[in-house]
Amino acid sequence: MAKVAVVMGSLSDLDAVRPCIDILRKFGVEPVARVISAHRTPDTAHEFAANAEKEGIEVLICAAGKAAHLGGVMAAFTPLPVIGLPIKSSTMDGLDSLLSMVQMPAGIPVATVAINGALNAGLLAVQILAIKYPDLMKKFKAYKAEMAEKIAADDAKLQKELDK
Amino acid sequence: MAKVAVVMGSLSDLDAVRPCIDILRKFGVEPVARVISAHRTPDTAHEFAANAEKEGIEVLICAAGKAAHLGGVMAAFTPLPVIGLPIKSSTMDGLDSLLSMVQMPAGIPVATVAINGALNAGLLAVQILAIKYPDLMKKFKAYKAEMAEKIAADDAKLQKELDK
Amino acid sequence: MAKVAVVMGSLSDLDAVRPCIDILRKFGVEPVARVISAHRTPDTAHEFAANAEKEGIEVLICAAGKAAHLGGVMAAFTPLPVIGLPIKSSTMDGLDSLLSMVQMPAGIPVATVAINGALNAGLLAVQILAIKYPDLMKKFKAYKAEMAEKIAADDAKLQKELDK
Amino acid sequence: MAKVAVVMGSLSDLDAVRPCIDILRKFGVEPVARVISAHRTPDTAHEFAANAEKEGIEVLICAAGKAAHLGGVMAAFTPLPVIGLPIKSSTMDGLDSLLSMVQMPAGIPVATVAINGALNAGLLAVQILAIKYPDLMKKFKAYKAEMAEKIAADDAKLQKELDK
Amino acid sequence: MAKVAVVMGSLSDLDAVRPCIDILRKFGVEPVARVISAHRTPDTAHEFAANAEKEGIEVLICAAGKAAHLGGVMAAFTPLPVIGLPIKSSTMDGLDSLLSMVQMPAGIPVATVAINGALNAGLLAVQILAIKYPDLMKKFKAYKAEMAEKIAADDAKLQKELDK
Amino acid sequence: MAKVAVVMGSLSDLDAVRPCIDILRKFGVEPVARVISAHRTPDTAHEFAANAEKEGIEVLICAAGKAAHLGGVMAAFTPLPVIGLPIKSSTMDGLDSLLSMVQMPAGIPVATVAINGALNAGLLAVQILAIKYPDLMKKFKAYKAEMAEKIAADDAKLQKELDK
Amino acid sequence: MAKVAVVMGSLSDLDAVRPCIDILRKFGVEPVARVISAHRTPDTAHEFAANAEKEGIEVLICAAGKAAHLGGVMAAFTPLPVIGLPIKSSTMDGLDSLLSMVQMPAGIPVATVAINGALNAGLLAVQILAIKYPDLMKKFKAYKAEMAEKIAADDAKLQKELDK
Amino acid sequence: MAKVAVVMGSLSDLDAVRPCIDILRKFGVEPVARVISAHRTPDTAHEFAANAEKEGIEVLICAAGKAAHLGGVMAAFTPLPVIGLPIKSSTMDGLDSLLSMVQMPAGIPVATVAINGALNAGLLAVQILAIKYPDLMKKFKAYKAEMAEKIAADDAKLQKELDK
Repeated sequence: MAKVAVVMGSLSDLDAVRPCIDILRKFGVEPVARVISAHRTPDTAHEFAANAEKEGIEVLICAAGKAAHLGGVMAAFTPLPVIGLPIKSSTMDGLDSLLSMVQMPAGIPVATVAINGALNAGLLAVQILAIKYPDLMKKFKAYKAEMAEKIAADDAKLQKELDK
Repeated sequence: MAKVAVVMGSLSDLDAVRPCIDILRKFGVEPVARVISAHRTPDTAHEFAANAEKEGIEVLICAAGKAAHLGGVMAAFTPLPVIGLPIKSSTMDGLDSLLSMVQMPAGIPVATVAINGALNAGLLAVQILAIKYPDLMKKFKAYKAEMAEKIAADDAKLQKELDK
Repeated sequence: MAKVAVVMGSLSDLDAVRPCIDILRKFGVEPVARVISAHRTPDTAHEFAANAEKEGIEVLICAAGKAAHLGGVMAAFTPLPVIGLPIKSSTMDGLDSLLSMVQMPAGIPVATVAINGALNAGLLAVQILAIKYPDLMKKFKAYKAEMAEKIAADDAKLQKELDK
Repeated sequence: MAKVAVVMGSLSDLDAVRPCIDILRKFGVEPVARVISAHRTPDTAHEFAANAEKEGIEVLICAAGKAAHLGGVMAAFTPLPVIGLPIKSSTMDGLDSLLSMVQMPAGIPVATVAINGALNAGLLAVQILAIKYPDLMKKFKAYKAEMAEKIAADDAKLQKELDK
Repeated sequence: MAKVAVVMGSLSDLDAVRPCIDILRKFGVEPVARVISAHRTPDTAHEFAANAEKEGIEVLICAAGKAAHLGGVMAAFTPLPVIGLPIKSSTMDGLDSLLSMVQMPAGIPVATVAINGALNAGLLAVQILAIKYPDLMKKFKAYKAEMAEKIAADDAKLQKELDK
Repeated sequence: MAKVAVVMGSLSDLDAVRPCIDILRKFGVEPVARVISAHRTPDTAHEFAANAEKEGIEVLICAAGKAAHLGGVMAAFTPLPVIGLPIKSSTMDGLDSLLSMVQMPAGIPVATVAINGALNAGLLAVQILAIKYPDLMKKFKAYKAEMAEKIAADDAKLQKELDK
Repeated sequence: MAKVAVVMGSLSDLDAVRPCIDILRKFGVEPVARVISAHRTPDTAHEFAANAEKEGIEVLICAAGKAAHLGGVMAAFTPLPVIGLPIKSSTMDGLDSLLSMVQMPAGIPVATVAINGALNAGLLAVQILAIKYPDLMKKFKAYKAEMAEKIAADDAKLQKELDK
Repeated sequence: MAKVAVVMGSLSDLDAVRPCIDILRKFGVEPVARVISAHRTPDTAHEFAANAEKEGIEVLICAAGKAAHLGGVMAAFTPLPVIGLPIKSSTMDGLDSLLSMVQMPAGIPVATVAINGALNAGLLAVQILAIKYPDLMKKFKAYKAEMAEKIAADDAKLQKELDK
């Protein structure tokens, strides 16, 4: 069973992050969820990232808001791919979190998804793992097909709605 | 030898994209470079993305500017991980490209790197492949060590510069 | 009776889009309303756009939020004029949707209206059709006259309000 | 021969607007080009817009920068479709022009294209006319095919460039 | 008694505009309040602005949201000073209104105040009139003194609040 | 002869401010030009603003860049109308200067013109003075007529340019 | 006991500022809290800043919203370090306050913290004082350790939450 | 002699940072200048920050661009005050650097100065030290007086310039 770290900078991010944890579980990927602050627990951050590979983790997802350094800090200490999930905070509508995550300097990428895009952070981890684990690839293709069916069903609902 | 697609929306993006192609080659990853426009050659885009997996490609990098749909359009047609490389155009300082790439709706992530961050797009592809190919992981760790040495060397240069 | 496609990327956009459907009906234009996602149902999007002209549709209205690719994707597959209706999502106050729609690269325009400007998307379709259908032109002029009267009536109301 | 007005707020906009005039001529559409300022020659603006339909004009393209009111002012006085072409000025990177054009209030749409998107403004006018003039539709389809060929040729060039 | 026009683009702006009307009345300046839309009643706008001076109006205040052209349109038709009051609408947090008002091209200034700054729009009109009417200057100085006293009183309240 | 203060925060602003000084002179208004920094010479700023009325100044124009406090600081110490001229600096494209000037709190308006809109700052001062000095009103109307003629001449030039 | 001034531009800022006052008290630093408006009570602002050093104050914290000049105005009159606390107002999501505070011209810095970052404004004052007062340094280190413990406790809570 | 660390994320930042180093030397403060990357040499960053106090450093200045984490990372490992100097990079006009530095989460402030405000970063360090070192306070007051004289001299130059 593949392992993905889901690290959030604050416990208050949990509601925004939960769709990420849920989708990983749905795909049979084990989420190693942690609250680690790049700024308030920098030693833990350092240690967690440095040991991630050894612990069997293959992808890290880092969720943070405002000056969201968590992804960059983790990426500094691990060679594993790091997914950045910018969380919208009470000011600046998420632009600060987005720019703090995505605008990484040359050498240390953070694979950034949409502001509050927790589901996509999880799916991206699955896609990355799927190039190694054929079973996940099969599941992901099925998931895409289901999404298409759901949209088709919504299209049918729309016709009914408008015929009222 | 692992294969990564590097698709750009316009030949004029080549200068901005070249560091991505170069770094892939340096890591011994084969870049399948293409000019494909999501809007002007949508059939080619559709076909390329739909066949990518079958052609042995494992990661796609999509570079585009302005209303940069290329990453999203490719991601719609392939289950493989898609890296978005927003290119700065002549207006809006790259913000349009960034938002058009990163703000993907639920279900179809695009792993976005910094505006004009071509090197990082290539490195992220390497990191993703490295969870499957141990040899790439070894090379990537060496690359990180080299970067650290380069910064240390720059630090030494700074001391000389300031002693002048 | 002229036909206008009203495509939305998600059923959750219906509330924001409804003024567009209503105004088209009011003008006697038939709205062909659909839920089609550029990313989750790309084949349907492709097929719908490619067949639109043949199906008697003369203008397409595409409503989407966030990285709003729907207009561009449709415009890639049809020669018909495409109107882009950016929908405000939960972050970035609609700026992402707007830039993703309006900043189209050379060759493939999307005629973009205001963020959440569903009524105007419908009216623009009517204006476009009106250069072909004299009856619509007559109705549109009457509509403009009515709007002017409504403002004049509001002006009268203001006087009363302030005299209180 | 179909007639399209191309109105610019200042003669200094001509360089930015010229691709619009050129593409219209290429399609055999007659551009009625004018310098009219919504603010410095408001009477001319009023009169021109009010008479446009009678003069045989079928679409108006309005190019302006900064607080770009020209499109809205013209649209107030004519029932014809008005295309807004925001011109980047020396500050704010075109965002002011874009928002001033696209964010029109309910009732008076301006069909806005990308900042400095003069070619697309012309093409959009052609697409609008093409729903009435079958010959333009044929020409526009040919133009799209040519664009696709040009991208394919660029793709071939890229392969040569990278083989060097 | 000095006369100031207070024109709003829509009756729905009244709540935001009312502090402007109230402060003018408080200073004994007569507000000529009107609902006039630059886009929906352009003839009225034209006529009102063109006749304003003759009607004894000395300053115009124009309140509008989104692509807020009202100030510019009025300023085009009158030599009187025009104050622009940008109203925050449901998207873009007022930035669109602000830029549409303040970024006027050379030749036609609009004296812009803060987003939703209705009180300040009224006070600015008073300050302008006060250079002509000594009585208003005296009242305005008294108003400034009162404001200072109010802040001093708030300062005293703060001390009590913190002593709790 | 009416007197207008033209205060700039730094001598380096002179090039951007000169059109303001020139237009005032053209209208026969005496510009009292000063370099006064709100932050580096706060006592001078205080004193200048407090004495402005007594010195016969009737309007103040304040030009500054970045955190452009000059207008607000002057307005705090004088009851005269203060015009804010935001100067574009080397970062943020003028947005910082604009917001620092226009977003004044309730009670102390600054009549803000476009970023680098020096000509308009001068014209606005003339318009304000013109409600008191009939001669300036006559001159301003003539100026507006000249502007209209210049646009008409540019329109004629455009026809020649396009006939080439 | 060290003294820190906490000046707010309006009593309505108190709720946003209170965490700053509370944290100072927790560290045994005496907050001299005042309501002083840079624009409405400029003389008080001038006098307060000019006398601050003499009154035994060692650091000033200035909280203000919109065109937030308070920090700059205070810094103009005192050599003491000034911390700027931008308060989010009802429009522009705090960006106006932030830029008005942080973008200070050369010579007069304002040490700016996050929008509505009252706690951090207080902590920064403590850190500044701590380089002089060893006791504060000891307390601040303890505070950092407590924060780390709180995050670790939250991490433990997360595990329980997810095990449900 | 007081010691201030001046850490930059890349040697390419040196030109932008030099005014900071120069002003510190001018005040007789010893700048300990280093190139340390938060992402490429995280161990060095960790170690440097953790030892800073012990090495006799009293204030840290951290200069970085794009996703500028350096200030936050340093602040995580030291109780000393950290000044953030956002460097403008090739995209986003410095907004990314500014937000990444200033929007720090509760608990770990970074005292941020203007984009590319290197001089002010140095002056702020001096002001902070000056509350401990009376000699620096004296020098800083003299520096402020010199600045005022320079502005006064510029004011005199302006009068000559305009008399030409």
